[in-house]
Amino acid sequence: MIKITLPDGTLKEFSKGSTPMDVAKSISEGFARNVISAAFNDTKVETVTPLYEDGSLILFTWNDVEGKQTFWHSSSHIVAQALEELYPGIKLTIGPSIENGFYYDVDLGENSISDKDFPAIEKKALEIARGKHPFKMRAVTKAEALALYKEQDNEYKTELIENLEDGTITFCDHDTFTDLCRGGHIPNTGIVKAIKILSVAGAYWRGNENNKQLTRVYGISFPKQKELTEYLELLEQAKQRDHRKLGKELELFTFSAKVGQGLPLWLPKGAALRERLENFLKKAQKKAGYEMVITPHIGQKELYVTSGHYAKYGEDSFQPIKTPKMDEEFLLKPMNCPHHCEIFNFKPHSYKDLPKRFAEFGTVYRYEQSGELHGLTRVRGFTQDDAHIFCTPDQLDQEFKNVIDLSLYVLNSLGFDNFKAQVSVRDLNNPDKYIGSVENWEKAENAIINAAKEKGLDFVIESGEAAFYGPKLDFMVKDALGRNWQLGTIQVDYNLPERFDLTYKGSDNESHRPVMIHRAPFGSMERFIALLLEHTGGNFPLWLTPDQVIILPVSEKYEKYAKKVLNSLEINEIRALLDNRNETVGKKIREAEMNKIPFMIIIGENEEATNTISVRKHGGEDLGSIAIKEFSDLVTSEINSNLKSF
Amino acid sequence: MIKITLPDGTLKEFSKGSTPMDVAKSISEGFARNVISAAFNDTKVETVTPLYEDGSLILFTWNDVEGKQTFWHSSSHIVAQALEELYPGIKLTIGPSIENGFYYDVDLGENSISDKDFPAIEKKALEIARGKHPFKMRAVTKAEALALYKEQDNEYKTELIENLEDGTITFCDHDTFTDLCRGGHIPNTGIVKAIKILSVAGAYWRGNENNKQLTRVYGISFPKQKELTEYLELLEQAKQRDHRKLGKELELFTFSAKVGQGLPLWLPKGAALRERLENFLKKAQKKAGYEMVITPHIGQKELYVTSGHYAKYGEDSFQPIKTPKMDEEFLLKPMNCPHHCEIFNFKPHSYKDLPKRFAEFGTVYRYEQSGELHGLTRVRGFTQDDAHIFCTPDQLDQEFKNVIDLSLYVLNSLGFDNFKAQVSVRDLNNPDKYIGSVENWEKAENAIINAAKEKGLDFVIESGEAAFYGPKLDFMVKDALGRNWQLGTIQVDYNLPERFDLTYKGSDNESHRPVMIHRAPFGSMERFIALLLEHTGGNFPLWLTPDQVIILPVSEKYEKYAKKVLNSLEINEIRALLDNRNETVGKKIREAEMNKIPFMIIIGENEEATNTISVRKHGGEDLGSIAIKEFSDLVTSEINSNLKSF
Repeated sequence: MIKITLPDGTLKEFSKGSTPMDVAKSISEGFARNVISAAFNDTKVETVTPLYEDGSLILFTWNDVEGKQTFWHSSSHIVAQALEELYPGIKLTIGPSIENGFYYDVDLGENSISDKDFPAIEKKALEIARGKHPFKMRAVTKAEALALYKEQDNEYKTELIENLEDGTITFCDHDTFTDLCRGGHIPNTGIVKAIKILSVAGAYWRGNENNKQLTRVYGISFPKQKELTEYLELLEQAKQRDHRKLGKELELFTFSAKVGQGLPLWLPKGAALRERLENFLKKAQKKAGYEMVITPHIGQKELYVTSGHYAKYGEDSFQPIKTPKMDEEFLLKPMNCPHHCEIFNFKPHSYKDLPKRFAEFGTVYRYEQSGELHGLTRVRGFTQDDAHIFCTPDQLDQEFKNVIDLSLYVLNSLGFDNFKAQVSVRDLNNPDKYIGSVENWEKAENAIINAAKEKGLDFVIESGEAAFYGPKLDFMVKDALGRNWQLGTIQVDYNLPERFDLTYKGSDNESHRPVMIHRAPFGSMERFIALLLEHTGGNFPLWLTPDQVIILPVSEKYEKYAKKVLNSLEINEIRALLDNRNETVGKKIREAEMNKIPFMIIIGENEEATNTISVRKHGGEDLGSIAIKEFSDLVTSEINSNLKSF
Repeated sequence: MIKITLPDGTLKEFSKGSTPMDVAKSISEGFARNVISAAFNDTKVETVTPLYEDGSLILFTWNDVEGKQTFWHSSSHIVAQALEELYPGIKLTIGPSIENGFYYDVDLGENSISDKDFPAIEKKALEIARGKHPFKMRAVTKAEALALYKEQDNEYKTELIENLEDGTITFCDHDTFTDLCRGGHIPNTGIVKAIKILSVAGAYWRGNENNKQLTRVYGISFPKQKELTEYLELLEQAKQRDHRKLGKELELFTFSAKVGQGLPLWLPKGAALRERLENFLKKAQKKAGYEMVITPHIGQKELYVTSGHYAKYGEDSFQPIKTPKMDEEFLLKPMNCPHHCEIFNFKPHSYKDLPKRFAEFGTVYRYEQSGELHGLTRVRGFTQDDAHIFCTPDQLDQEFKNVIDLSLYVLNSLGFDNFKAQVSVRDLNNPDKYIGSVENWEKAENAIINAAKEKGLDFVIESGEAAFYGPKLDFMVKDALGRNWQLGTIQVDYNLPERFDLTYKGSDNESHRPVMIHRAPFGSMERFIALLLEHTGGNFPLWLTPDQVIILPVSEKYEKYAKKVLNSLEINEIRALLDNRNETVGKKIREAEMNKIPFMIIIGENEEATNTISVRKHGGEDLGSIAIKEFSDLVTSEINSNLKSF
């Protein structure tokens, strides 16, 4: 007999060789029908894996993240089989689950797949699924494994197997299909009731741009057709709100093949919006005692050797910039902190000067492979709303809390009210990953957890998620479509002060090491604006939106009065446009709607005669005929009610 | 006989072999005594060079730039002789005149020279000068020339001679001293009455950092002792105003050896000052119809191949940034224009959309050798207040005039009222240097000259000073010490629109090429702030200065009232500080003077009792006891009187 501990603490005995599914059935037949995956002693196992020792067991259903992973990974096997049957001779490589669905990377050889082929693939995959074929793991020798894929002439699987140790290699079989696989499957294919192929894209073998480009087939699957329908609706909504689409339509930013992928060019409306966001934060930061600094976008190699970044950013990064002088090399800055440390070192400090809070909208550059790039959310150059606080150990707690206050102010002002915090701490099993003493790490982790508690944040602690130089707190925001985004970070650092030999003179007249906090409430301006576009669907908060008002005269006759209205709005610092093209008001309204302009002012004979304006809100609400002054007050009061002072 | 034409058009006849000095004497003995240099048919000659053909002759005195150049170059021979006599065995290299004085680069071998050696060098040089030794040019064969310097074991002169063609080599003798020299000397050493060695510095042979470092001995000389005294006074004044010294004292900026030479770090007060300057220009630009954009600090190599910059910025520059992907290389941007062209190309334009005026405070990076770097005036990274105007050919004249208006507004607002303009046009003898058609160059040059005339600028036209891609107008400003600075540039460009294939649809429905104007009223923020520091001696215009007011309570007892005063100033947006340290008012005033704070408010018993403040201006003027409100109004009205709206 073996002893199995369940998550609720229950301890049950089973005969040796019982499977997780047996355990599930012992709880209830109904529950067992929903179990699709399991973890034994924190390791993923099949629901049919026989257990021979005591241990803890977790059983997962579709409602668990782990259940979905297993479901989608299993679905990738089904789709792979369908692809092999439809396109004989293609070479399979890898097929993992992802956040939403799964993909399979295949070398299609002479074949190609496009949108029009998706229905046939889905049909074939569903046919296979309906066969209710069980997924069966099978241990093979390295020689057997190599033999299979050499026969198929599949150099990819062969390469994968060659890097595995004999005795650890397993295949997974279902129906007529066999794949090299470490395991983690649902009981049988029949649980998959709905499959959708979403897209195809290029992907380099092993993610290396110098390798062959494969075809990545993205898909998603569900245990009910209804869930697929709902997901596709959400996807359609997300597509309408895609920041790349809206960014182009609203003329906020663009990319140029000549300038380079992942390097956004901010168009006038986007640059102005970004400046308003920056000014909003600058104002709050000024009140919070921050001082702005400006530092260059490059630094000598020596700077990053000192900071430790040079050792961390290696061959996968932008390479050093050589100069005519042999021994002088520079790097594009991947972070602002080394520069701010050197600013701190500008002159000696006393404890009376601390905290020093240096802020900068600092543009940093980090290489990403072209396949990883995505609009403004994954770029090669981005601007952090960065700041570094240098304080005494005694001031750390208070400073951390102040930063949380500032971050909450930012989130609330931008309309994000659904968020959690994640505290990332060390992986205690992997101490070599981290720079700095254990004592300092403990101090820092405690400071963060205490601050999160005191500020009443809804937070989780994630072991092993800390950066190599310190623990941190991240805000995880849920957007209007229910998706989670990591946004804004606060990070304690006991490491850089050592590396840059930062000191201050204490009240004891001795030299001490300051503590450093890195923080960025927006995270990156690029990513934040992308998120805000998708969250609001382009309907930005009134204080932030590019054009607040558009004036639409019904004919040229009223242009003079329209200009008078425009002028009086501008005097009240309302951002207004005049559309005096020779077009119908209907067309002008449609375009203003598409441009997400919050207020439209329609001007005709009656308005001019009565010295009023007719106001229509974005979306159609009619505010009727009002005086210009009344309208200005309305706009100003709406702005003030949304944008409180810090 | 030969016919000599003088600058005023006079034509005189002289016997063959007459010298420029003979010509000078024919004008007047008194004038001849002042003549120290000459140019025959635009080529510099000695005053004693015999002339054998007809030609035009210009005679220079100390009052001419060319006269000073000759005077200072001749002085470098005298100083070189003094150095050889004082430090036998040293190796001479080159000794040109510079803007103020001259230098000689020497390989001192085992010797070294420091400040304390300067008087001995000056004494020896003056002794030589007093000998009234004539400078005599002498043609030598290449073999003779090499023999002399091989005997002296001087590899530098040997290298220079080896690159010269036999038959073109000349020596210059005076007293016991001989130097390889192309000519251009004053009649004799006796004309030099005052010599000052100013400094020594390291300098690489041939300016190449991989070569041996030599010692550069800087000096200056004058025909009268009094002029030297005046010059040294000016130098002392300049030293007090040196922007590197003031920048440090006022905590505006710093440099870090780790970040790298020539890469300024802006400290809080400097960053805030820079932001005020930028906001000042942004406001004016907004009124002038500019739109801000933001572009990255790198671009693909392809971008600069298209723009032509890649061919121009070669091995002397920051080298390309390689990436993990073999065929993908980036460059630090040396200019913003290629990025702005790509922004223009974001969408099709109609003539109705033009002009488009894209502005950016764009930070660019250009490699400079470490020996060339100087504070903020010569750096490796700097921020241009850049903008590019894309307009139709018909709009060019008006746009150019508008830019001149904006530039004049900037200069006047910052207290520069002494300036000239320089229009840089092609070198007609060197057409291959320039990109673009002759027709377009002519159009552009005419537009600039017309605009300069119409705006009543005091301007000169300089042939051959244009950039390779277009003619330009630069503002040359004279600062408070009488020194000239190049500041602000406006440049017409017919070239980049071709290279980037920029087009707009004209009223004829055909595709046309827009014209481009590059402009930067400040030039670079770094250089402008350096100049402003030296021009004002750190006493910035009140609207711009870091701290406008400092409040100095005479004792702790008055701190509460002091804070009330501070608060009411802050409400009126006056930048005020409170110095509540436990120090004497005398010390606080001295420090406030050093920090160049325009107004000091002294607060004691009487002030608190009468609800007033005592105000002392920077420099000592006492404004007596006034009400807080009265003082706020005074500050505000002083700001408004200095800073008009655009």
